[in-house]
Amino acid sequence: MIDYASFYATHTRDMERSLIRELLKLSRTGQAVISFAGGFPDPATFPVAELREVTQDVLATDAALALQYGPTEGDPNLRDALIPWMAKDGIAAARDNILITTGSQQALDLMGKVFLDPGDIVVVELPSYLGGLQAFRTYGAELVGVPQDDDGIDVAHLADLLVRLRREGRKPKFLYAVPDFQNPSGITWTRERRARVLALAREFGTLVVEDNPYREMRFVGTAPPPIFALDDGTRTIYLSTFSKTLAPGLRIAWVAGPEPVISQCVTAKQAMDLCSPSFTQAIAAELLRRGHLQRRLADTVALYRAKRQAMIDALAREMPAGVTWTKPEGGLFLWVRLPEGLDAGALLKTAVAEEAVMYVPGSAFHADGSGRNTMRLNFSYPSEEQIRSGIARLAALVRRNLPSPVHTIHRRGTNVSN
Amino acid sequence: MIDYASFYATHTRDMERSLIRELLKLSRTGQAVISFAGGFPDPATFPVAELREVTQDVLATDAALALQYGPTEGDPNLRDALIPWMAKDGIAAARDNILITTGSQQALDLMGKVFLDPGDIVVVELPSYLGGLQAFRTYGAELVGVPQDDDGIDVAHLADLLVRLRREGRKPKFLYAVPDFQNPSGITWTRERRARVLALAREFGTLVVEDNPYREMRFVGTAPPPIFALDDGTRTIYLSTFSKTLAPGLRIAWVAGPEPVISQCVTAKQAMDLCSPSFTQAIAAELLRRGHLQRRLADTVALYRAKRQAMIDALAREMPAGVTWTKPEGGLFLWVRLPEGLDAGALLKTAVAEEAVMYVPGSAFHADGSGRNTMRLNFSYPSEEQIRSGIARLAALVRRNLPSPVHTIHRRGTNVSN
Repeated sequence: MIDYASFYATHTRDMERSLIRELLKLSRTGQAVISFAGGFPDPATFPVAELREVTQDVLATDAALALQYGPTEGDPNLRDALIPWMAKDGIAAARDNILITTGSQQALDLMGKVFLDPGDIVVVELPSYLGGLQAFRTYGAELVGVPQDDDGIDVAHLADLLVRLRREGRKPKFLYAVPDFQNPSGITWTRERRARVLALAREFGTLVVEDNPYREMRFVGTAPPPIFALDDGTRTIYLSTFSKTLAPGLRIAWVAGPEPVISQCVTAKQAMDLCSPSFTQAIAAELLRRGHLQRRLADTVALYRAKRQAMIDALAREMPAGVTWTKPEGGLFLWVRLPEGLDAGALLKTAVAEEAVMYVPGSAFHADGSGRNTMRLNFSYPSEEQIRSGIARLAALVRRNLPSPVHTIHRRGTNVSN
Repeated sequence: MIDYASFYATHTRDMERSLIRELLKLSRTGQAVISFAGGFPDPATFPVAELREVTQDVLATDAALALQYGPTEGDPNLRDALIPWMAKDGIAAARDNILITTGSQQALDLMGKVFLDPGDIVVVELPSYLGGLQAFRTYGAELVGVPQDDDGIDVAHLADLLVRLRREGRKPKFLYAVPDFQNPSGITWTRERRARVLALAREFGTLVVEDNPYREMRFVGTAPPPIFALDDGTRTIYLSTFSKTLAPGLRIAWVAGPEPVISQCVTAKQAMDLCSPSFTQAIAAELLRRGHLQRRLADTVALYRAKRQAMIDALAREMPAGVTWTKPEGGLFLWVRLPEGLDAGALLKTAVAEEAVMYVPGSAFHADGSGRNTMRLNFSYPSEEQIRSGIARLAALVRRNLPSPVHTIHRRGTNVSN
């Protein structure tokens, strides 16, 4: 019997599988579990008729290119189509500022490959997107967390951290920011926070990686500009995707940034997958050119706005006192805070087994392991009926496990041993 | 002005862009240059009609899954379809032995991510596939080259190397092998060499990564079993792809190996791109299920057999004495050896500028930088007419630059300074 683990690289040896991805796998088995765990779009938003039209046309007129290897930078038509798509948010990018990636996760992996040596510091929010944390960890990065409040990342805390690091002769390679409807917390940074973070990045000589997959999914309020739009084109690297506005199964996302950084990313991507699929890129470029994506966006936003409201209403109706949640202006997730003493991770098995409901425990999103009494709930994938029924089940679970003054210590002990 | 390079990770900072990929980019510009540089399949082999049929059916009946995020392991239907596809070559694999990747390049990157710490040794052939060398280098691996002869890797040399390393208390993480119609050399390992390498891997406690993208593209002779088929399912990790048998623009490849290794690869892939495109996987699975790929294979092989013969004939007709080339039993490439003193890398610019013909200089494929008088010629993409005309141009270039006894030393000096 070979001890395969003895062959594994240091930073992947103890890597844990994403709980989300493992739960997602379960969610394909057709069990009657109601899942708030994934980040799946509602398949009703997939432009199936438009895709049938466009795939036929691409195969009829462009098969020799659309089925061939393509440039590592991405399909030039798609890169060009992204210029106006980003310009509507104030992002000024030319073709050479854009690299197509195989989903945003590849863009995160690329940030690791291009920038991170073992021991390098990345500043992340507490909580932050799990896929980002995982990608950076495989490069041996040291993730340093900065708390959030309702207006976004705590800039005073960030400034203190940067000063402290400077005293130690260190600086972060980059700050990883998810400023719009953050996954998982749902928090949106104010314009002031964005400007302040950019100013701190300038002052301390570091970069900002702005991950913005949900930008188009705004239900209420007005959008502050992306950090990239406040920058002069030198400090910010912008990541976005069509996984939420088109369909994740095409795996089309992109990086926009300073040309030298994009060029370095292209070189690194050559060693990662040569190029993203020419076929799905050609399809996406043509969908954009024909205006199909742009036309569908309002319906998608309306659908998710209604689901978000259904979840907020259900939480208000069902949850006991002491449970709180965010009311995000957009995105796909609510963030729920249970009373101190409840451990969402320890409760998950019971939730699935006894209440047939799933969520993602919040501690996974915290670089420092905190947030044990938090959970992330997705509202884009379940139906409104499933949202009502699932939140009722979840509330029943929470109620049964609420710490009473007498039992708190005992119950916390039990949870820890699970 | 920001010094972006000061932010880059050690092992990607000095990374060079793949000359092939850069040349490929040129080859999209529509210049009248005849390119033997890429590894492009002939678009005539793309099953366009079958793809039009299958994409319509997938979108009509399976859009909710085919456009959604999928399991990191890959589409279960595709993984199941790969079981008989590999069984025809004697490879026994169950679904849990198979992971779908975004092209074979991702599988190579995955081998790096899962296995390689900086300074780890990987044994490679001299020459070996450039994409493999690049992927392993980004993890800081030390690549140790072993020469080939006409029967494959030099096993006596390999045994000596392993003994020497053992004396130093070191062992390679794996041996990277391309045993069928190797890219770039075209050499196929005999069955004996395969068995011997596997025995050495067992004796010295290491693994074999068998990269086999061209297996189906055999024009003459009988196929020795893959190394994987000679193994007991414990030592060999097998990489293959549909880039040559279906179309590279779908980016579908796979890894087959021991279940614990596949499981570790799945965990690592989660941090790399979450999953490969569900859409192209669903299409490939359905193409296989309907037998479309299997039916087209004979025509593809016949087309490439004729092109290979056209190139061999043209070389025999045009090249001056002292130039030699391989006559590969399959694959997409011929390997040409120029007289000592000629530097294929230094000649490339002249080849493009004056003769409008491109190739890949052989030194890029040599982990130790040797092979300066060699070049790789692709015959799958150019037409037979382009092959005849391009080889004539190349021969004219070689003839003009042949070292005469008087000028050899001078010319070599000139080349080095280019």
